[in-house]
Order: sequence, then structure tokens, then C-alpha cells
Amino acid sequence: MSAENGHPESNGRAHDARAALGPQEARAVFRGGHSGPTTGWAPGHTQANLVSVPADWAYDMLLFCQRNPKPCPVLDVTDAGSWTTPLAPDADLRTDLPRYRVWADGDLVDEPTDVLAHWREDLVSFLIGCSFTFEWALSAAGVPLRHVDQGRNVAMYVTDRQCREAGRLRGPMVVSMRPVPPRDLAAAIRETSLLPAVHGAPVHCGDPGGLGIADLSEPDFGDPVTAEPDDIPVFWTCGVTPQAAVMASRPPFAITHAPGQMFVTDARDEQYRVA
Amino acid sequence: MSAENGHPESNGRAHDARAALGPQEARAVFRGGHSGPTTGWAPGHTQANLVSVPADWAYDMLLFCQRNPKPCPVLDVTDAGSWTTPLAPDADLRTDLPRYRVWADGDLVDEPTDVLAHWREDLVSFLIGCSFTFEWALSAAGVPLRHVDQGRNVAMYVTDRQCREAGRLRGPMVVSMRPVPPRDLAAAIRETSLLPAVHGAPVHCGDPGGLGIADLSEPDFGDPVTAEPDDIPVFWTCGVTPQAAVMASRPPFAITHAPGQMFVTDARDEQYRVA
Repeated sequence: MSAENGHPESNGRAHDARAALGPQEARAVFRGGHSGPTTGWAPGHTQANLVSVPADWAYDMLLFCQRNPKPCPVLDVTDAGSWTTPLAPDADLRTDLPRYRVWADGDLVDEPTDVLAHWREDLVSFLIGCSFTFEWALSAAGVPLRHVDQGRNVAMYVTDRQCREAGRLRGPMVVSMRPVPPRDLAAAIRETSLLPAVHGAPVHCGDPGGLGIADLSEPDFGDPVTAEPDDIPVFWTCGVTPQAAVMASRPPFAITHAPGQMFVTDARDEQYRVA
Repeated sequence: MSAENGHPESNGRAHDARAALGPQEARAVFRGGHSGPTTGWAPGHTQANLVSVPADWAYDMLLFCQRNPKPCPVLDVTDAGSWTTPLAPDADLRTDLPRYRVWADGDLVDEPTDVLAHWREDLVSFLIGCSFTFEWALSAAGVPLRHVDQGRNVAMYVTDRQCREAGRLRGPMVVSMRPVPPRDLAAAIRETSLLPAVHGAPVHCGDPGGLGIADLSEPDFGDPVTAEPDDIPVFWTCGVTPQAAVMASRPPFAITHAPGQMFVTDARDEQYRVA
């Protein structure tokens, strides 16, 4: 994904530039049509997954999230038709993400940079915690972020673990993976444990087979990442999980973010830290 | 509440007895008709608030909880008509709480020890985290529990803080209060911060006027507690909040637990601890 449009997020200099922007400025860039992964943007500000479904599917989605709180921690739910959220009062959810996915009967039908033409009055939007939020805590604790250093989107995988069903919604748990040096594993677990609203502690470390993942070099979403020889693969639940539920359960219509291209909010990561 | 039926939970010897019971045994006692506060029962096991509403109010209630996660942390939501939960597979939500409250149009119409006669096929039940769950962590950290020592229900107060509305539901935030010696305040905050699923850190310490509470000796629910001279009143959000929303918003029908008389689950407190 990161290389799809040749935008400057794929090198170190751009990393510095995007890190200098605040969340409002970052959203203005995306609103202007720029797309690409949001990892590394607007340091210290909470990023969110988006899934919008028709109102008659909203209860199923909210219940699905409640029953699967680790992959689907809900940060906000809009009223039907509303494209605003208290998490970023001046933002427009229809235009301010880098790239969207539009789904009909569970099939991907469009991947635009805004969804003004697709919007419906009955859409209820769910903003769900994203692991990019805790990357700042990892960085501050000295844990290297291989995908950021390599200018790539994070690697995400569909697992063989099924979520708990809710109404008409079912689907597999999706995870993101970051290679972590053994000396940093304790810090990685400790720091993310304290941020349960953005997936919290890892669900798995080590052998990807434990989650039914055959090949780390072929992620289902995002980019493969190059690990150092001693690195341990560490897996956190991922907010693409509701998107996988849309693919598996086929509601008549849905809008989501494109994986890794998140909604950057005005909220501070620190406000989700429990201690 | 604790003295309402003269049951032995109001003295120290009974405290020992109830602490010796596991959650299944405790529920059997309640199913047999015993009522009274569940503080101190079935050590180490998660306790939950209950609110059951007709299915056409379930989305509003789930959204209300999502928008007010600190007072209303959802631990489980049943399918419509179901009286079972994975939190205690052999339990019957209609009989296994010590005492219930039945509401019609927001008015309290009955306070029975089971709700078999009131049950409806369209009821969706919400189990919401309870601060009794973290009392074991407080105790283990050396924080005295004045209400338990005094054989009383915890003191609960309606505050002047309004919850964020959701659909037809609105209402004030309710809190529980425990007097904490100054030397134990840090431990009380630390221990409860690590249990966000059962209300987490306090919302307020000190002057009750800060929450619009006029007189600590007159709680809205539960019993007043006697503090030591140096004790600091510490306020945690309370799962009676959805019950206050029922009173304020007047859905046509609802069933709740009686304040302080909780559903004792098989879940372990430790599983809700984030670190």
C-alpha cells in the first residue's frame, strides 16, 4: 500500500515531515487527495479504523464490537447520517481519511479518496481503536518500529481464530505484526497493555502458525516487513477485523477505511492510557 | 439495604462465611431466596450489574454504554430472550441475583427475588462491570474497605454530571464512594486503574460538592458509611448509572438488579486486569 502512489511517506525525510504535522494539518493533506498509510503521522494523536454500515445493521456491528472488544475497541459511534465525531470536531468522516473502501454485498466495489458520492443518510459510523496509536508509546520505550524505519505500511494477517458472532455478523480475527528484538519484548508488552482501548497487549508472540498464519512474507493487508535475525514476531489484534466481518457476512452496503490508511483524530494517545 | 431482611451479611462472622463460598454456591444461595448486598461474596470473582430492556431499546442501551464506558463497561450482552451468559454458563439471570427491580415507564413497580413472572421473550440483558470486583484488589493492596468492615452496602450517589445521550436514553452519572486513608490513596488509584473493565480509576477524590453531592450521609442507593477522621472520600463510577437512565428516560419496561445486589459471575477478576 505505501508505494501505491509514490507519495513521500516511503522515505525517511518524509517521515520527519509527516511527524511535524498536527492532526488537523494531516487531515487537510488527506482531504486534499493525498493517500497512503498513516503510520508515523501526527505523533501522539489517536488513530482510528472506520466502518460505516446502514442503521439496520448498526446494532449487529455494535454488538459484534462489544463481543470482540480486543480487536474492535469502539472509540465512538455516530448518529445515523452524521459525518462528525467529538474525537475531531472539525473533521468530515467522508473526506478526511487518505483512502476508503466501499463494499456492496461484501464485495469491494470502489477504493476512492473520499466517499461523498457514496454517502447515505442511514449510515452509522464506528471509529475503532488502531494500533498505530500505541506505536508512539513503543517508540518512546525504545522499541524499534521496523515498518516505519522501512517506510512501509504495517503487515496485517487474517487468522484462524473466529470472532464471537453477533446477529448477522461473523468473521475471523485480523492481527497486525511487528518484529520485536528479544530485549524489547517486555517493554512492548508492558506499554501496549496499558492502552487497552487501542488493542492492548499482544494476543500472540512467536510462531505465526499459532494463529494459522502460513507465511509472514505474504500479509493479507499492508506490506511485508523485513525482520532482524533475532526478532520475535509479535501479534496485536487489528481494527481491520470489522472489515473482515463485512467481507464474510456481506451486509448490503458498507464503507471502511483502506487498511493502514486511518482516521487521524485530535484525541491524545495519553487519554487512553490506563496508568 | 444490608439490614432490610436481617440476613447474616451484616456482621463479621457472616463475612467469613460468604467469603468461603464460590460463585456457583453463592448463586445457589441467592436462587434459594436469600437477598442482600453481594459485597464480600465469592472472593476474586467478577460481579456484574444487570439491566434488561426490550429488544427495540437494546441499540440505545448498547450505544449509551459505549458512549459512557467508564460508568457502563459492558461485560456481556445476551441475545433477545436468553437468560444465560458465558460469564457463568450454569446461571439463570432470572433467578440467580439476590434481588431485582422491575420498572414500567421508568417507575419502580416491583422488587422481587426472582423475575420469572416478569420475564419477556424480547428482553436483551446487559451485564455491566461492578466496583465490587476491584474490592479484592484494594484489599490485597492493604486498602481498608470501611463498608465491608461495617457490614454495610456500599454508598452510591447520583451526581450532577450528565451522561452522553444515546437515542432515547439519558441520565446522570452515578458513583460509589469509599473512604480511603491518605496513606492508601496512591494504591487505591493504582490498583483500580489497572481494572478499566470494572470502572477503572476514580473519577473524583475529596470534596463531594465537586460532583454535586450535598451530603455523604444520605446516599441515593446503598448505606451510609462511617469514615475515619483523616479519610478521603474517593468516588468511582457505578453500574447503577444505566438504572438511573431507566428512571430518567422511562422505557416502557426494564428489569435491573437491586443496587448492591449483583450478579456473581464465574469470571476471575484477574482476567480484567490489564497489567
